[in-house]
Amino acid sequence: MRALREAIGSGQLAPGTRLPPYRSLARDLGIALNTVGAAYAELVAEGWLTARQGSGTRVARRATPLPAERARRATPPVRPPAYDLMPSSPDATAFPRNAWLTSARRALNAAPHEAFGVGDPRGRVELRTQLTEYLARARGVRTSPRQIIICAGFAHALRLLGQVLDGPVAVESYGLGFHRSLLTGAGRTTVPLRVDAGGARIDELPGSDAGAVLLTPAHQYPTGGPLRPERRAAVIDWARATGGVVLEDDYDGEFRYDRQPVGAVQGLDPDRVVYLGSASKSLSPALRLGWMAVPAHLVDEILGAKGVRELWSGALDQLTLADFIACGAYDRHLRRMRLSYRRRRDQLVTTLAERAPHIRVSGIAAGLHAVLELPPGTEQDTLRAARRHGLAVDGLAGYRHPDSPMPPRDGLVIGYGTPPEHSFTAALHALCLALPDPA
Amino acid sequence: MRALREAIGSGQLAPGTRLPPYRSLARDLGIALNTVGAAYAELVAEGWLTARQGSGTRVARRATPLPAERARRATPPVRPPAYDLMPSSPDATAFPRNAWLTSARRALNAAPHEAFGVGDPRGRVELRTQLTEYLARARGVRTSPRQIIICAGFAHALRLLGQVLDGPVAVESYGLGFHRSLLTGAGRTTVPLRVDAGGARIDELPGSDAGAVLLTPAHQYPTGGPLRPERRAAVIDWARATGGVVLEDDYDGEFRYDRQPVGAVQGLDPDRVVYLGSASKSLSPALRLGWMAVPAHLVDEILGAKGVRELWSGALDQLTLADFIACGAYDRHLRRMRLSYRRRRDQLVTTLAERAPHIRVSGIAAGLHAVLELPPGTEQDTLRAARRHGLAVDGLAGYRHPDSPMPPRDGLVIGYGTPPEHSFTAALHALCLALPDPA
Repeated sequence: MRALREAIGSGQLAPGTRLPPYRSLARDLGIALNTVGAAYAELVAEGWLTARQGSGTRVARRATPLPAERARRATPPVRPPAYDLMPSSPDATAFPRNAWLTSARRALNAAPHEAFGVGDPRGRVELRTQLTEYLARARGVRTSPRQIIICAGFAHALRLLGQVLDGPVAVESYGLGFHRSLLTGAGRTTVPLRVDAGGARIDELPGSDAGAVLLTPAHQYPTGGPLRPERRAAVIDWARATGGVVLEDDYDGEFRYDRQPVGAVQGLDPDRVVYLGSASKSLSPALRLGWMAVPAHLVDEILGAKGVRELWSGALDQLTLADFIACGAYDRHLRRMRLSYRRRRDQLVTTLAERAPHIRVSGIAAGLHAVLELPPGTEQDTLRAARRHGLAVDGLAGYRHPDSPMPPRDGLVIGYGTPPEHSFTAALHALCLALPDPA
Repeated sequence: MRALREAIGSGQLAPGTRLPPYRSLARDLGIALNTVGAAYAELVAEGWLTARQGSGTRVARRATPLPAERARRATPPVRPPAYDLMPSSPDATAFPRNAWLTSARRALNAAPHEAFGVGDPRGRVELRTQLTEYLARARGVRTSPRQIIICAGFAHALRLLGQVLDGPVAVESYGLGFHRSLLTGAGRTTVPLRVDAGGARIDELPGSDAGAVLLTPAHQYPTGGPLRPERRAAVIDWARATGGVVLEDDYDGEFRYDRQPVGAVQGLDPDRVVYLGSASKSLSPALRLGWMAVPAHLVDEILGAKGVRELWSGALDQLTLADFIACGAYDRHLRRMRLSYRRRRDQLVTTLAERAPHIRVSGIAAGLHAVLELPPGTEQDTLRAARRHGLAVDGLAGYRHPDSPMPPRDGLVIGYGTPPEHSFTAALHALCLALPDPA
């Protein structure tokens, strides 16, 4: 990339010169297509190149960046890691482009005119209707289109709930720091619940002053177990007894590998549970589509926080997803991805068993990530080693609630969904190199 | 609709029965296509009907609504008005479906894989690049792709700015109450600037303690004039002298009818002005796409408020819009709509001149709305009369800042973009009936 910049800056590459397509350059240089794409995009952003669909990427006519940009480039660019094993993104190369386009065409042609006006703040009724049926069938959720609210992803939903709920929110620890920060940003405090092999310790709820609890019952994030049946019942009892609200983060409920998916807790009592789902893992985080199935008495308050005029999610993607579900393409895509992710998981487990048998892997029954347990005190060193081997991985430390009474554990959270298929083996190889030797 | 519900409830219409398509029913009943669409959608939402793209609308197999729904339906449904003359929506029937689909197909096929992953919090570089060129060409905006931030519409942008700016924000009064409430919601107070035929009274800024000012320089909203040239210079002087920030709401800059568009104030000093635009009026509010061109020193702070992981706007619509601009379809669409809206404006002016010559119309040089000045004390009565005639219209009262020193004026703000072409004449007819007689 630097070479390209210099060639343009020095006039070696004349304005208007057409650059080779991603694909040829990637093949010629033996680097990933995405790397070339990202480099081109960066140079376009900086004003060195112009990209025009149909006519390729060319050296910009006015290839002198704006003054403000020149100053900015003085700071050396951060080199992206070669292998991304950060948790919680799906495989971006597997987006079903053709099926999505087919649904988009059908949905756009069938859409009533009002779909292009200001719509229902809950989101498109077509999508809410399809989700009602789909979630009932696939996740045991009991709801109605009127009680579904479409959002710009899970985080948007959690922001809104943070504004609407009362009192502190109990969260799992280990759990996602990003979710804690969204709740804090909305003015809530969070209190930690310990997690063990049976999921969150629901017995700690009654002793807290929480007005709500955020759980990942299908697959505790990140440590991996499903919430034990008696705890599912217990959290509903708690909600009924105290008027508390259960927030069910069903972030990867569709991806269960070794047995039947665990149905949503929401089905036990739709008046006490807000069910939260999204297309971010099942399809792509780039869609920015999430949904909540909410108790009837919370609908208006949540819509008030969302704002009746803003809608947030594009209607066309909503209509397309509705068609995508209705025509069966969503189920097909999920089946395909389940197989693909399961293969990756198996490869991860096998590779570790062969090359690092001293490392215990957990949380592998579902989802797109696993936890690698590390010897005490080795997490920071392992993360540094990973960076040296070109790996982006996550440590367990950031998932621990600062107030948690649990002693810290050392571990890595490995997302196996993100790397493109062709680099997955190399990513695992780099991972094994970064792991600590047996004690 | 009630008849349909009863027919289903009583078993007259058996489950699975296919209902006639929108178009036939609309023709048979002589009502608007949208009305039928809305009624079907409502019944689908209530669980009476199921809609499946490709197989039409049918009576639901389990046509017994959930208990919660049954209770809810006891409150009588609000009848939507027959004619929508509320300001600020474009003609939803004019969305360029085919051209959009063409761009969507091209964009989706050309997209690099990383487009389906978690992306740049600023938004897609392809769209930011196209907007940089387009805004320079069409609106005289000077920016770079790095200084453009894509948002889920104008309101989202204003929410973010409200979090980032310091001190009170000066706003135009008359101006949009919704914008004031967004700023207040973000913790800002607002102070009113008076408006006259030359736009906002910039001379009132230095006396205020405002740290920022929100202006509609191209077409004062709602009263209608462009900001006078010496005031454009004065607001930049103010910003330079005080370190204040100018927020330029260019909500309908593309729709100017009688002379050349007025360029953006941002071009005078890109380091002092945040330029705000969106696709809501140019294409559709259902897209939820807006953009800001921001001074370099504000980029990071605004991205911090936006959240680096949430993105908000769907990548596919962003890529599609980038292609739509690049291939010239955006310009073509704007030209077509400019002609269409101009015809409507002419028809509004002519109709009023004939049938209500005592009513002065202003703000007609641009945009999708006009202000009808009413005799003092008649606004509330006129709004009531309008409702009786099936009209949704807006009064001036809500646009007045509660602290404004200006005496209240009576008037209507008429949006002429929203009604579908076939009902526009009837809408104007109803409007004339609702207007007060000459004194």
